[in-house]
Amino acid sequence: MRRLKLTLQYDGTKFFGWQIQVKKRTVQGVLEETLGKLLNSQTQVQGSGRTDAGVHAKNQVAHFDTENPMPTEKILTALNFLVPEDIFVKSVKEVSPDFHARFSAVARLYLYQVRFTKSIFERNFVWQIHYKLDFEKMREAAKLFIGEKNMISFCRMHTETNSYFCKIYEIDFEELQDGFNFRIKANRFLHSTVRMILGTLVEIGRGHLKIDDLERILASDEKQKIGMTAPSLGLFLEQVFY
Amino acid sequence: MRRLKLTLQYDGTKFFGWQIQVKKRTVQGVLEETLGKLLNSQTQVQGSGRTDAGVHAKNQVAHFDTENPMPTEKILTALNFLVPEDIFVKSVKEVSPDFHARFSAVARLYLYQVRFTKSIFERNFVWQIHYKLDFEKMREAAKLFIGEKNMISFCRMHTETNSYFCKIYEIDFEELQDGFNFRIKANRFLHSTVRMILGTLVEIGRGHLKIDDLERILASDEKQKIGMTAPSLGLFLEQVFY
Repeated sequence: MRRLKLTLQYDGTKFFGWQIQVKKRTVQGVLEETLGKLLNSQTQVQGSGRTDAGVHAKNQVAHFDTENPMPTEKILTALNFLVPEDIFVKSVKEVSPDFHARFSAVARLYLYQVRFTKSIFERNFVWQIHYKLDFEKMREAAKLFIGEKNMISFCRMHTETNSYFCKIYEIDFEELQDGFNFRIKANRFLHSTVRMILGTLVEIGRGHLKIDDLERILASDEKQKIGMTAPSLGLFLEQVFY
Repeated sequence: MRRLKLTLQYDGTKFFGWQIQVKKRTVQGVLEETLGKLLNSQTQVQGSGRTDAGVHAKNQVAHFDTENPMPTEKILTALNFLVPEDIFVKSVKEVSPDFHARFSAVARLYLYQVRFTKSIFERNFVWQIHYKLDFEKMREAAKLFIGEKNMISFCRMHTETNSYFCKIYEIDFEELQDGFNFRIKANRFLHSTVRMILGTLVEIGRGHLKIDDLERILASDEKQKIGMTAPSLGLFLEQVFY
C-alpha cells in the first residue's frame, strides 16, 4: 500500500464544493471517479478540508491510498489528461503512511479578492463592491480576531463541531489600485468562517457596524447575529501548512 | 435620429467573434438583438472593428442610430440588465452624427497576455507557454515592425482588403514575474495580424526563427510562410483611439 499526496488547483465556479455528494458535481467526486478508473480500483480521496460551493483552491492538498505501482509522474500526467479543465493537479508525491491531508495540517491560509470596479474577466473570482471602505478601521477591527477565539457567531447555523474555537494567526489587507486582497491564516476554519469574518470587516469598513459591536459579539459564548457573509466566488484556499 | 456610442467589455470565450453570423453566437448579434427589443425597433450596431472568435475586449467601441428618446443612463442600465454575463456595457453616450465607430478611429491598441506557468483561473485569458524566451532578441525584432509596413505575410490567406499596409506605432513587452504582456498599437490591423506578429516574435525569442528571416519576410511584397499564430484566447482589444 502506498499513500500519495496530491496538490491541486480548482476553479470552484461549477462545483458544488469539495465534498462528495450524490448526483452533484464535486471536486472530491470527480477526483475519486477519475482515480478509480486510472488505478483500476475504487479510491477514496481525503482532502485537507472542505471548500464550499463556488470557492476556489490554488493549493488544495489531498491524499489517497493505492496498491497500484504506477509511477507518480505517470499518475500526474494521466490525471491531468483525464480531469476536466477546471481542475489542475500540480503534483503527486509518495508520502509516509502516517501523513494525513486533514489531520497533519497545522494551518490553512485563505485569500479573498475584492475589487471596486467591474471586470467581466474576473467575474467568477472577485467580489465586486461599489462603496468606499475605511481600511484603518478594518485593520483595527481585524486585530480583535487574532488569537484563540470562539467562532460560534462566525459559522453557519448547522455546523457540527465539537469546538467553536479557532486559533487565528494572521489577517492581512493587501491594498491594490482597484481593490484589495484579504488573507487569513488559522489552525482551522468552520463552515463559512472566512466569508463571515470578511463580511463583518467590510460592514465595519463602510460604517454599518461598530468595532464595539464586534467586541461584544466576539466576547459572547452564544451565537449572535452578525452582518453580511461575503459571497463564495472571491474565496481561494491558498495554502495548507504541514 | 440620435447616434449613440457604446463602450463595452466582453469575454470572447463563448462568442464566435464580433461580427454577426447566421446561427452563431456573436457579440454584434447579441447587441443588435438586445437593442432591438429594448428600443422597439431593428437596430444595427457598427463596431470599431471585428474581433475573432475567442478574442476579448476591454474597451470595444460601437455606435448605433435610434429614433427612441430613451435617456442614455436608462439605456445603459437596461442593456446591462438584458445582456448575458460575458458582456458588460461600460458607457452609452450621445455623439455627433458624423462620429463613426470604425471610420473615425485613428488607432487601435491590442494587449496579449502570455504566462509561463499554468493557472486554471486565467485559462481563457492567457497563452500558457513552457519555454524560455530571449526578450532582448524579441525587442530587437519588434523594431522591424514599426512604421508603415506591408502585412501581406501577417494576415490570414483570404483576408479581403484593398491594402495590406498597416502603420504600426508601438510595440511593448511588459515583463512580469510569471510571463509578459505584449501591447501593439497601429492605425489598423488585418485578420489575425496581432496573433501572427506575436507568434513570430515568440519563435524568434525561443530561437526557432532568425531576425534575418523576419527582415526578408517583411521586405517581400508577396505572401511568405511565417511561423506560429498565437492562439486567440490571450488577446484583448484594449483601446480604440479617436
